Parts: sequence; structure tokens; C-alpha cells
Amino acid sequence: MDSYTPKIRVGIFGGAGYTGGELIRLLVHHPEAEIVFVNSESHAGKAVTDVHEGLYGDTDLLFTADPLWTKTDVVFFCFGHGKSAAFLAKHSIPDSIKIIDLAQDFRLAAPGNDYVYGLPELNRASIATARHVANPGCFATCIELALLPAAQLGLLNDDVAVNAITGSTGAGQKPSATTHFSWRQNNISVYKPFSHQHLPEIYQSLQQLQSDLTANIDFIPYRGDFARGIFATTVVRTEKDIAEIAEAYRTFYADTPFTHCVDTPPDLKQVVNTNKALVHVEKFGNKLLITSCIDNLLKGASGQAVQNMNIMFGLDETAGLQLKATAF
Amino acid sequence: MDSYTPKIRVGIFGGAGYTGGELIRLLVHHPEAEIVFVNSESHAGKAVTDVHEGLYGDTDLLFTADPLWTKTDVVFFCFGHGKSAAFLAKHSIPDSIKIIDLAQDFRLAAPGNDYVYGLPELNRASIATARHVANPGCFATCIELALLPAAQLGLLNDDVAVNAITGSTGAGQKPSATTHFSWRQNNISVYKPFSHQHLPEIYQSLQQLQSDLTANIDFIPYRGDFARGIFATTVVRTEKDIAEIAEAYRTFYADTPFTHCVDTPPDLKQVVNTNKALVHVEKFGNKLLITSCIDNLLKGASGQAVQNMNIMFGLDETAGLQLKATAF
Amino acid sequence: MDSYTPKIRVGIFGGAGYTGGELIRLLVHHPEAEIVFVNSESHAGKAVTDVHEGLYGDTDLLFTADPLWTKTDVVFFCFGHGKSAAFLAKHSIPDSIKIIDLAQDFRLAAPGNDYVYGLPELNRASIATARHVANPGCFATCIELALLPAAQLGLLNDDVAVNAITGSTGAGQKPSATTHFSWRQNNISVYKPFSHQHLPEIYQSLQQLQSDLTANIDFIPYRGDFARGIFATTVVRTEKDIAEIAEAYRTFYADTPFTHCVDTPPDLKQVVNTNKALVHVEKFGNKLLITSCIDNLLKGASGQAVQNMNIMFGLDETAGLQLKATAF
Amino acid sequence: MDSYTPKIRVGIFGGAGYTGGELIRLLVHHPEAEIVFVNSESHAGKAVTDVHEGLYGDTDLLFTADPLWTKTDVVFFCFGHGKSAAFLAKHSIPDSIKIIDLAQDFRLAAPGNDYVYGLPELNRASIATARHVANPGCFATCIELALLPAAQLGLLNDDVAVNAITGSTGAGQKPSATTHFSWRQNNISVYKPFSHQHLPEIYQSLQQLQSDLTANIDFIPYRGDFARGIFATTVVRTEKDIAEIAEAYRTFYADTPFTHCVDTPPDLKQVVNTNKALVHVEKFGNKLLITSCIDNLLKGASGQAVQNMNIMFGLDETAGLQLKATAF
Repeated sequence: MDSYTPKIRVGIFGGAGYTGGELIRLLVHHPEAEIVFVNSESHAGKAVTDVHEGLYGDTDLLFTADPLWTKTDVVFFCFGHGKSAAFLAKHSIPDSIKIIDLAQDFRLAAPGNDYVYGLPELNRASIATARHVANPGCFATCIELALLPAAQLGLLNDDVAVNAITGSTGAGQKPSATTHFSWRQNNISVYKPFSHQHLPEIYQSLQQLQSDLTANIDFIPYRGDFARGIFATTVVRTEKDIAEIAEAYRTFYADTPFTHCVDTPPDLKQVVNTNKALVHVEKFGNKLLITSCIDNLLKGASGQAVQNMNIMFGLDETAGLQLKATAF
Repeated sequence: MDSYTPKIRVGIFGGAGYTGGELIRLLVHHPEAEIVFVNSESHAGKAVTDVHEGLYGDTDLLFTADPLWTKTDVVFFCFGHGKSAAFLAKHSIPDSIKIIDLAQDFRLAAPGNDYVYGLPELNRASIATARHVANPGCFATCIELALLPAAQLGLLNDDVAVNAITGSTGAGQKPSATTHFSWRQNNISVYKPFSHQHLPEIYQSLQQLQSDLTANIDFIPYRGDFARGIFATTVVRTEKDIAEIAEAYRTFYADTPFTHCVDTPPDLKQVVNTNKALVHVEKFGNKLLITSCIDNLLKGASGQAVQNMNIMFGLDETAGLQLKATAF
Repeated sequence: MDSYTPKIRVGIFGGAGYTGGELIRLLVHHPEAEIVFVNSESHAGKAVTDVHEGLYGDTDLLFTADPLWTKTDVVFFCFGHGKSAAFLAKHSIPDSIKIIDLAQDFRLAAPGNDYVYGLPELNRASIATARHVANPGCFATCIELALLPAAQLGLLNDDVAVNAITGSTGAGQKPSATTHFSWRQNNISVYKPFSHQHLPEIYQSLQQLQSDLTANIDFIPYRGDFARGIFATTVVRTEKDIAEIAEAYRTFYADTPFTHCVDTPPDLKQVVNTNKALVHVEKFGNKLLITSCIDNLLKGASGQAVQNMNIMFGLDETAGLQLKATAF
Repeated sequence: MDSYTPKIRVGIFGGAGYTGGELIRLLVHHPEAEIVFVNSESHAGKAVTDVHEGLYGDTDLLFTADPLWTKTDVVFFCFGHGKSAAFLAKHSIPDSIKIIDLAQDFRLAAPGNDYVYGLPELNRASIATARHVANPGCFATCIELALLPAAQLGLLNDDVAVNAITGSTGAGQKPSATTHFSWRQNNISVYKPFSHQHLPEIYQSLQQLQSDLTANIDFIPYRGDFARGIFATTVVRTEKDIAEIAEAYRTFYADTPFTHCVDTPPDLKQVVNTNKALVHVEKFGNKLLITSCIDNLLKGASGQAVQNMNIMFGLDETAGLQLKATAF
């Protein structure tokens, strides 16, 4: 980067939660962005390092209750679901400031909603010119990346069976019975089967590529006994030849810097602590099996949010996101 | 028990592996059975407590290379798959000795195969009079218990989607890349999708109750990052009313001491370190979702083997199997 | 047991927490005891199986707000620390009812305190005749069992370095930041170094055997990333010969049914889900290293409470406590 | 970086193991270095991404059996212990090539050994001019960082009690009984107490700062049930005031970019997947408690190796090492 280019000035709202912390961890090392403020009413005055793991030595930031509107180019909303809309109703944000909302408030198209759905693999061009971006849900990202090429091929006309298992960070920071270590470690369970709140945005994205989609997405979410990641298996009934399907998947993801169509079935830790998504296809009889995985806090949340910021500001899409995988 | 009744004398072959160890852990506390020998050529002479965790203070047994045929009422084969048949081809076992084989060698009906498939929920009466029992596979047990009442209702005429996740003990004791702690912890992956070796015995058991079964069992096994247990979700497309289905399930399992049809979706740790199976049914649109779970080493292996022994010898079916759940 | 002997009738107070649940899991299978009531004001009317994992099929008990004093032989107090004394101040309990208190309220000798400290390895005879027993703390149990024979040898005259790591169940059922799965899994940390609340009872027990004890017990507790168990290493500076020390340890534990002096350094899972303690001694230069481990909820809490009940009522000390180790 | 500066050309020997993989994960994103070859005789011809997790999309490198000496500025030896010396005995390496050895072959000073012990906090200046660097051991790094300022204060004249727990990656890639997932998960054990092979280099480094050191370092290593990280508690008996000690620690680490003296007791995950070390001091009576932690594969191995490379080549010490903590 030319050293005279000013850095993009970032503000973070709701910065005390998991996605806020992950954004901070990413942005403290981003070569072309700097954090101007991290807003948290409950933690105002506290050091960011006292709340978020893994930041000692990286930042002296304190949480603030006062947003610095005049010094900010972009804000990230890391509020709980429903609170972004409520915040906007109360505050007037200068038009010059771009907004990336990590909640689900603006993901669905609606009259008056000018937020672009921020899945670069689907909407890169419109993200590039957007002022407002609605960052996708974590399960939604993993499942859409599994199915978008199939939708483009027009394959989604029958029941689609999706099983996806998520880490505990998907349940947020607030301690609860199902995030208690004593309960969750070594345990597996199901929640919200056939009714998860990400289904509407999944249908919306798939219909963008297959307008005559009639499939039911039968989605069973599992609670996993790990902290990070989503791993999904998706089964589509189709007579189409696997060679043709595989070629379509490779083509679809040929130029996406973080989503890779791989030849070997992936395991979850291939992507943990990265912004990557891995997608693998194979066929058994008339069943297409698609395996996909992401890190729910990165490609499923804060990493994709930074990716969207990069695209919105014309930066290299991978800036600040070339992360070392944890691997173990 | 009448104190004059002699205990059942048990011999264990292949006693150095996981299922052998688990059998020993069960039988050292069984009120009506005693272990006469534990055979292991590679460990002959070693103390059982030096090989198997959790037995200090419970037994002074040594592994032996010499089976004590004349002092034995029943033997368990804990060999690797294929080795039970090989062993029988080489050794002549007295007719008076009952055999419970934990491998898959005799699970499928075939001319000359007199082994009864040892799933008590399906074959209790024939197990009671059997001389030879083939103990079911772990995945097979969990999936059959999910589907048997549906088969009895004749519901299995369309694709059935099964996802089941298993603990590392299912992969056996021999260290390997996919049981290496550094790789497996926090990791999720799929193996043998649509082609797991337990499918034939699953079809066989379901067809026993639904002779016109035409369903494909689309089974995707997952490797889980825990040591014990199998947790399965099974989806059946059906128009039948859930009330009728639930009633059929409750009836089917009304008198089975270890398999319970529960009202709340179970989590895996409800059954870990017990011989129980929990089964739960609910319906979403035209999809019946069945959740089931077992401990793969107990109800999925050694526990069920002891349950079969109890039935074969006319004991209380639960003798030695009223185990404290680990719970955490 | 003679079938005409009535079972010991048990009441449990504070039955909704971890130690209460564990007591229930033990007592539902105890051959000579039966649970008469489980008291919990907050859960009164609920099924015990709705609150505690792993009990489906084992009991139909409901929580009750009303203790059945007239039908009870013994009560267990599973209250939080400090609440047992408060409860006794408000309620008058018939003299015929024995009390086993799992909290720390009565562990320390004091004028008017008639509770016997319930470590059978130290106080078996007085427990046998006690009406009131104060069940030891979990860390205290593990560390005392490591050091009692050394105290008897008079070795504790210099600093003793104790490091012990505990599972998350030691922190209780209430969700908190340090029991949140996302934080605790794969994590290690220290808490209350040199100041843990179990130190006074540890000193008291050691002084019972070595009245001139001058050692500082420098105890550093670790939070472990597992749910069950305590594993401790204890280092004592001494010139005494290891053969003599080892002999003293073996002798001390020769007749204790659950505590075993073993020849091989133990690992934690040898004892998980059992009432056992394993103790191992070896020497390096002038340092005696003692390794000890227990299950914090069993030998460290509810299991030892049942062991004390067995002793108080003249039963076999192991009744209901011959538990299958989880092992994996 | 000036775009005309050529990148440092790196060769890796023994690149198929854990430290080799971690080096690759670091160097593929290093702004001023490029991997020229990864040597592995057993994997020659295979894609690096087929062997090492987490690299899909980051590199097309294949393992090679042929080192490209003429195109290389520095080589890393990731051989097993003892094999670096053996390799050097057989091969003649051009003088222009710097060597960083991750094994223990050259860590101890000896006649003819020109390797500088590569702990930057101790030897930054001599590393900067070294041609050969011996990268410290993982436990050694964590324990030396805990004790170096105390050595400088001359405090190490009595027994020092060190307990440190390590992740499974410390045991290497080869599957074994103690890295089997079924055994290791939820388990804790001790190995090589008072005799770990890192003790000599620890004494050597401490004596460099305290020449009259007489302390015994009583080091008990634990096997932890996590994959990454080392967490150590170290206790030193001293009458010196904590304020003075804390000031000495802060001063010692005031300018080290990765090692931080922190005010709050750290937990392990603060450093996992980073090159950081955190050190914390507090005092209880006459006992100084030092808590320290690192990621064993990064600051304890490959990260420190890259840090040494940066210093040896005059780069910013943090280049390529500003890593996002996993945090969860």
C-alpha cells in the first residue's frame, strides 16, 4: 500500500461480544484499516484486552460509550439480532459512513431495505458499490456455499437434506445451560430442526440463482462439542452426471479467494481460524453429497464482514484476512 | 440371587481391545457371572489392569493364551472382523459352550449360519433359546432402534436420510491418523458416506418387520470429537399422523428395559456409560425426525453382549447393566 | 442382603445441583437404600429426570418442597456452602435421623460441632458411630490421601508443593464465565493459588496424624478443560528412603476398598466415574513425588457421602459403589 | 517493504512433521520470505496441502527430495532430535546459507558448537549476527521466560517448583498410545518428572544471568488434553519484595515484542495460535508465583524460529508473526 493513503477508519458497535472481539482481533493487524472506536455501553472505560482473549500486546484501546462519527469511514454493527434496526431508528448516521451489519435485521429483501446481502461469492459486484451491507448468517454462509452452484444448475427441485454442526461460539457469549462446559463437552444434540432462523436467507440466495426453486431445505442443526466452526453435509437428489456438477462447482469458485472446491473430503480444522470455506462434491447413486465447512466466527461472521469492507473500499479482497490456520 | 446358584463362567477372546476391556469392566461387577479367562496371545501373562483403564482394585486377572474350555459356559469373541470365522475354522469348541460374537462375521443370515442377530428389541425370544448370537454393530444398533417401529408401520418406502456421529472408540484401539488426538480434537469429518459396512444388517433387520421395504437408507457417518457414543438423526418422509407414529414407538419400546421412547429430544450424554438407547420422534410437515443415541461400547457392543448373555441364560435382562451414567 | 431387611430411607436436600444429581444416580441402583424424597424448592413438582442427565428409565421421582421426616433414616445436605448451618438453624430435625453434610460448614472441629470429618481412610471408626458426618471437600480428599501416610511418617516439616487440576463440575452448575464452554475448552488457568478454602481441613487432617506438622502446603489449583476429576502432584522434601515410604503407603491403604497405592503412575481416567482414589509414590533425589487422583463428584463428593452412609449403617462399605469406570 | 528487495529464500528440511507444517503455515503469508523448497524424502512429490491441515488455497508447493542449495538463503531443520547433527555430518552446506535448527542437537554450549541459543529475550544481539541458531525447546522457552528476570535478580538459590502442562502436539505427529484420542481426551497424566530433557538448556540459560545459581529446578511435566499450548506455574522461595520483583520483570520484557508481563493471571488461550508469551508474577508469603504460557508450536518452536530468522536477516522482528489468536 502506498504509505500516503490514509487508513480506513473503523468504528465497532456492540464490541463486547464474540463477533466484536473477533473483528478487533482481525483489524488490529489489518494493513489498511485502523480501529477508531469500539463502542460498548456496559464496558465503557475498560480496556479491550480485559474483555477479549488474545489481544495482550496488540492494542491499548478502551471501550467507549461515545461514537466518533466525524472520524469514521465505516461502522460494524455487532449488536444482537433486532437491535441494529432499533439503533438506526434512534440515531442519525452521516451518509458518508458505510455500514456493515452482522445481525439478521436487513438480510431479507424488503421495500425500503437498501442493504446488499454480503455474500461475496454471490453478490461481489453489488457489494463493491453498496453503502450498506447485511452480513450473512453463519449457517447460511456454509449452506449457501454448498448449494449455490447446484442452484445455478437448476438442481434444487426436490427435498434437500442438510445436517450441519456448529461450535459453541455460535451460541454467543452469554453463559447458558447449553454452553455450560460440564454439559456441552463430549455432548451432541439437535436444536431448531426444520425451523432455523437462517432458512429464509438461504432460500432467498438460492432463488437468486434458481428462480424456479421448489426444494425444501430440510435443515437439522447440531450443537457440537467444539468452540469454532460449522461443518455441513448436504444431499441433493439428481440424475445429473457428477463430472458436469463438479465442473460447475470448480468454475463457480475458480476466482473466489476464500472459497475453494477441493478434491478431498475436508475436515473442519482445515478452516478453523481462517476466512476460508471448503466445498467438496461427490455422488452416490442419484444422491449428490456436498460437504462444506467454515469458521463460524470468520467466514461465518467477522471475517466475511472484513472481506465485505475490503470489497466496499476497493482494497485487495484478502487484506488482513490471510490468517494462519490453527490446524490443531 | 440364591447364593447356591453357581455363577455363569465366562471366557473372553480378543480381550486386549476396547470391547474386551469394556466386557471385563462390566463382568467384574456382574452379580451372576464370573470371568474364567481372558485370552490374548499378545498380552499373555500381563495383568489385565496393565492394559485396560479403570480396573485397579477390581481384578487380579492375567491375560492367558490358554482357553479353559472345560470350565466355561459362554465365550465372547472380541476379535477383529473376519477373525471369528477364522478362529472357529481352526478350533473345535464344545457344544455346551454358548458363543456371543461381537464381530460382523455372522450377523447376516446365510445357509448354515445358526447365529441369531442379537438385538433384544427385535429378537428377544430367539436370543433366549440361541446357542450362538451375533452381536449387532454399533451404528446398526442406533439406526435400527430409530427405525424398527417405523418399519413395523410400513413407512419405509422412500429415501431415508440418516446422519450419525460416532466417538473415537468406534475406530478401535490401534493408533491412526484419524484417532490422533492432535487431529481429532475439535474436528469433524465424514467417512464411508452411503457405503458403511453396517448397512446390510440394518436392511436385514428392517425387512424383518417390513418385508416390502423399498427405502434407500442414505447413511452419512461422521467422526466426532468425543470418545464414547453415537448420536443419530433419521428423517423419513411420510404422511402418517405423528400421534399414531408416537404411539407406535411408545408401544414398541414399552417393555424394553434399556430402550426408552422419550418426550424430550435427548442429548448424547444422557446415555454415555450406560446400556440405554433413547429414541425421540417428532414431525415437521411431512418429515418424521427420529433422534436416537447410544453408548457405542455398551448398547453398541459389550453392554448389549452382556444383555444377550443375560437373556440366553435366563437371568434378569438388566443384571450387571444398571450402570451409573457418566452424565458429565 | 436378607430380603426382609428394610432398605435405608434417604432424603436429599438441595437435590437440583451437581452433587445432588450424582447422589441420585448412585442411590437409584443402591441395593440397600431407597430415595424417599429429593428436596428442591425451585424445582418442586418437576421430574428428577428433567433436571439431571442420565436418569431416563431409572426413576419416576419428582422434586418435592416437603421433606418426609417421619419416613427417613438419613438425609444428605447438598446445599451451597454456608447454607447447611442456616438450614439447621431454621429446622428441627428428629434425633433419629442421621445427617451427611456435603458442604464445608462442619468440617472443622469447633466447640459444639459434633460432625465427624468423613474421610473413611482417616476416621472410619468414628464415622461408624457418628450421627453427623461432614463430607470432605474434593481437593481436600485428593490431597489428604496423597499426604496422610507421609504425615504418619512425620515427614511434613518443610514446604510441600501441591499442584492439582480439577474438572469443570467442581465449579458447580451455575453457568459462569469460567465454565462457559467457549472459554474453558482447551484452556488452562489457575485460581485461588495459596489460598484455596480447602486448606484448613487439609491441615486439620494431616495434624491428626502428625501433631508437630510445620509444613506449608503450597497449593496451586488449576482449572482443567475436562468435566470430571482431580489430578494432583505433591512434592515433599525428605531424606527418608523410598522403600520405607512406599511400604508405609501400601500398608496405610492395604485395607481401604477404594483407595489403592499403585505401582504405575496413574492417569486421571483410571478413576473417572468411580469412587476410587489412586496414589503413587516415587522419589527423585531428596524429593518425594506423590501422584493422586479421584473423581471430584464421587470420591470427592457424592460417592464418598454414600461410602460414609454405608459405614454409618453397618453395610458393606462398597454397597452401591462398585461402578464401571468410564475409561474413555 | 521496498518492492525491489528480494525476498528471503527459505528451505525446510523435515517438512512433513508438525513443526515443518507450522513453519509453512507461517511462511506462506510472510511478507518478506518465500519458501523455495520443502524437503521430505518420504513425501517427495506429494502436495504440501495433502499432508498439512489448513493450507488449501495458500500454496501449490510439492515436497521435494532435492534441496535447492543455490537458491536458498536460510534453511530450517525440522528433523527429529539427533538427526540434525547426523544430516550435517553427511551433507556439506554452503557457508552462505544460514541454519536454524529446531532440534536439541546444538542447544548446549560445547567446544566447536557455533550455534547461538535462539531465545531472543536472552540473546537477541548474538542471534542478529549468528550464522547458526539452535531454536529452544518448547518447555524450555516457557520456563526460561518465567525465570530469566528472577535469575537476573539472583533469586535462584533454593528449590524451584515448576509444573507445566503441554498439548498433544508437543508429542509429535506419530500416533502413539498417549496421543490416541480415546485415551488422551479428558485425561491428565505426568511424564518424565524431574528428568525432562529440556532441563540442561534451562539451567544453561538461567546461569547465563545468574552465574552462582544453585537452585534445583524441580520440573513436573503434565500431558494435557488439548492440542496446543504450554501453561506453567513456577514457585520460587524468596524474601525480596514483590514490587521490586514485578518492576524487574516489567523492565526485562519492556521491549520484547512477543513476551508481555501482564497484570492479570493469564489463561492459556490468550496465546494459542500466536507467537506470544505471557508472564505474570505475584507473591504469597515468601513464595513468588510466576505463571507463564506460550503456544508450543509457535513461540515454543516454529514461530520463534521465524522470529530468529527475522532477527538474523535484519527484518522487523514481528514480520509474518502478527497472528490472530484463536481465542476460542
